[in-house]
Amino acid sequence: MITKLDIESAAERIANRVRVTPVVHTEAGAFGVAEPLALKLELLQHTGSFKPRGVFNRVLSAGAPKVGVIAASGGNAGAAVAYAARELGLPAEIFVPEASSPVKVARLHSYGARVTVTGAYYADAYAASLRRAEETGALIVHAYDQPEVAAGQGTLGMELTEQLAGIDVVFVAVGGGGLLAGVATWLRGVAKVIAVEPQQCASLAIALKQAQAVDVPVGGIAADSLGARRISTRALEIARRDHIASVLVSDEAILRARKALWDECRVAAEPGGATALAALTSGAYRILPGERAAVIICGGNTDPGDLVERR
Amino acid sequence: MITKLDIESAAERIANRVRVTPVVHTEAGAFGVAEPLALKLELLQHTGSFKPRGVFNRVLSAGAPKVGVIAASGGNAGAAVAYAARELGLPAEIFVPEASSPVKVARLHSYGARVTVTGAYYADAYAASLRRAEETGALIVHAYDQPEVAAGQGTLGMELTEQLAGIDVVFVAVGGGGLLAGVATWLRGVAKVIAVEPQQCASLAIALKQAQAVDVPVGGIAADSLGARRISTRALEIARRDHIASVLVSDEAILRARKALWDECRVAAEPGGATALAALTSGAYRILPGERAAVIICGGNTDPGDLVERR
Repeated sequence: MITKLDIESAAERIANRVRVTPVVHTEAGAFGVAEPLALKLELLQHTGSFKPRGVFNRVLSAGAPKVGVIAASGGNAGAAVAYAARELGLPAEIFVPEASSPVKVARLHSYGARVTVTGAYYADAYAASLRRAEETGALIVHAYDQPEVAAGQGTLGMELTEQLAGIDVVFVAVGGGGLLAGVATWLRGVAKVIAVEPQQCASLAIALKQAQAVDVPVGGIAADSLGARRISTRALEIARRDHIASVLVSDEAILRARKALWDECRVAAEPGGATALAALTSGAYRILPGERAAVIICGGNTDPGDLVERR
Repeated sequence: MITKLDIESAAERIANRVRVTPVVHTEAGAFGVAEPLALKLELLQHTGSFKPRGVFNRVLSAGAPKVGVIAASGGNAGAAVAYAARELGLPAEIFVPEASSPVKVARLHSYGARVTVTGAYYADAYAASLRRAEETGALIVHAYDQPEVAAGQGTLGMELTEQLAGIDVVFVAVGGGGLLAGVATWLRGVAKVIAVEPQQCASLAIALKQAQAVDVPVGGIAADSLGARRISTRALEIARRDHIASVLVSDEAILRARKALWDECRVAAEPGGATALAALTSGAYRILPGERAAVIICGGNTDPGDLVERR
C-alpha cells in the first residue's frame, strides 16, 4: 500500500517537472448538474494527461538511471515516459503493438523515443518490453501498476486539496487504477472518492463484484485511455478498503459529457477525460445539495474536430 | 475616462454572473518563449469569450430594463448579449449582416435571442439596430465603445491581479479596444500593458500613428473577433496617456501561436484568442529575463478541427 507520506515525497520529487493544473468552478445548472462543480483541468498537464506525475516519480525515485527507461504503451502513458525521458536527458524505448496508429508512433518519435512496433496485441508488446529491459537493464515504467507511479498520480489529489478550500466528493475515471489508487490514498479521511468507468472498460466494477482482479473485455469510445485489461491489485484493495463505488457510464454518456465540456467552457477533453463528468451529467450519480464536488478532467489527447458544427 | 472605482463597482455588480477564469503557469521554454508565462484562460468564460463581463455590467448598470436589450453583432459580443439577456430574463434583439454564417445565427437563437438579418455590411446592421432601439426603447449594448462595457472588461484585469502575486507585463489583444481600455485602467501603475493586433486589423496601431481614431481596413484570420473598423476613442486616449505600444503580428504568427497553445497545453483558442500570445511566440516582443508576464487568452469560439493531425 502507498501512503500519504509517499505522495508528499512524490510531490517534492516532481515539483519542478509537472505543472500545477488549474481548477475552474462552474455554477449550479452548468452541464445540467444542479450543484456547482470544480473541474480539475489536468488535461493541461505536459503531454495532455496526468501520466507524467507518476512517470517522473517512478524515474526520479530510481535515480534517473543513465541506461534509460522502457515502457509498453502507444497511449498517454507512453507519451509521458517519452516526454519525461527527454526532459531528464535519458534514452527511452517504447514498445507498441502493430495496430498502433502512425499518429501515435509519430508522437513518441517527436519526444525522441526509440519506438519498437511489435506483436499483434498489447500483451505481446508488453512482453517484448520486459525481455528488452532484461537485456539492457533499463528501468521499466508501468502504465499504472507500480507504487511509485500510483504515488505520483496521488500528487493530483494533493494539489486539489491545496487548491480547494473544502471538498466533499471527487470523481475519478478508472482504467488500470493508478490515478484512483493515488488520489484515493491522499483523500482518505478528507473526501469521498467516486470511481467512474465506461461500461465497456469496467476493470474495477467487475473486480469488485468478483472480489479479485480479473481480465475483462475492453472496448468502446474511451478504450484508448481507460482500456486496461485488468485493474491493479493496489487500486482494487484501496477501493475495497475505502468502500469506493464504481459508477458505470455508457459511451453515449461519455460523448455527451465531452460535448458539454466544450459547449459550456471550451474544454476539449478526450473521451477518457470526460468520463468522470459523465457520471454526473448522465445522472448515474447524484451529488447532494450543498455537497462540494470536484471532477478530474484527466486527459485531452483527442481530435477535437467533432466538437463544433460546421457552417 | 473610466476609473479603477468603476471597475471595482463592475466587479461587485457582475460577480455572480461571470466565472472567475483560471490561470495556468507555463514554464520557461514552453512555446519557445524563454521566460515562464501566466496564461489567463478567459476562453472558459460563459459564451467562450470575455464579452459577458462588459455586457452584464452595461445591462445591470442600467437596471436590467424590462424592455430588453439590443445589439449588432454576429460574433462574441452578440453571443454575450444574447446570453446575458437570457440569464437576466430579458428579451434580446440582435442585428447581424446578411453575410453572417448560419452557425452564428443559430448560436444566437440558441440563447433565445430574436435575430434580424439585414444589410450587406456590419454598418448597415448596426444602423438598423439603432433605429430599432429608438422605436422600442431597448438598451443598446455596444460591442466595445461604452464606458460600462469597458469597465466590465476591466474586471478581467482586477481578477488577474487577485490571482497572481506579482505581475510586470500583461499582453492584451485589441479589436475595438474595450478589453484594452478596461484592463489598462486597472493595471495603471501596477503593470505594463502591451496591446497586440493582427497586421490586418490594426485599428490601434494606425490610430496611434495618426494621433486619432480612424477607419481602418480589416481582414485576415482573426477579423471575426478583432476586426473592429475603428478603435474606441477611450482606448486610444488610454493608450496614448499610458504609452501603450501596439505590437503587430502576422496571421501566420497567430496560427502558430494557436497551434502551440494546443500542443503545449490543450487549450483550443480562437485566432483572436491566440493573438496576444503571438507577440511572444513570434519574437515580435521579448520580455526581459525575470519579467513576470501574463497573457490573456480571450476567446475560444473556434472550430478546433485543424489543431491535430489525422491518422
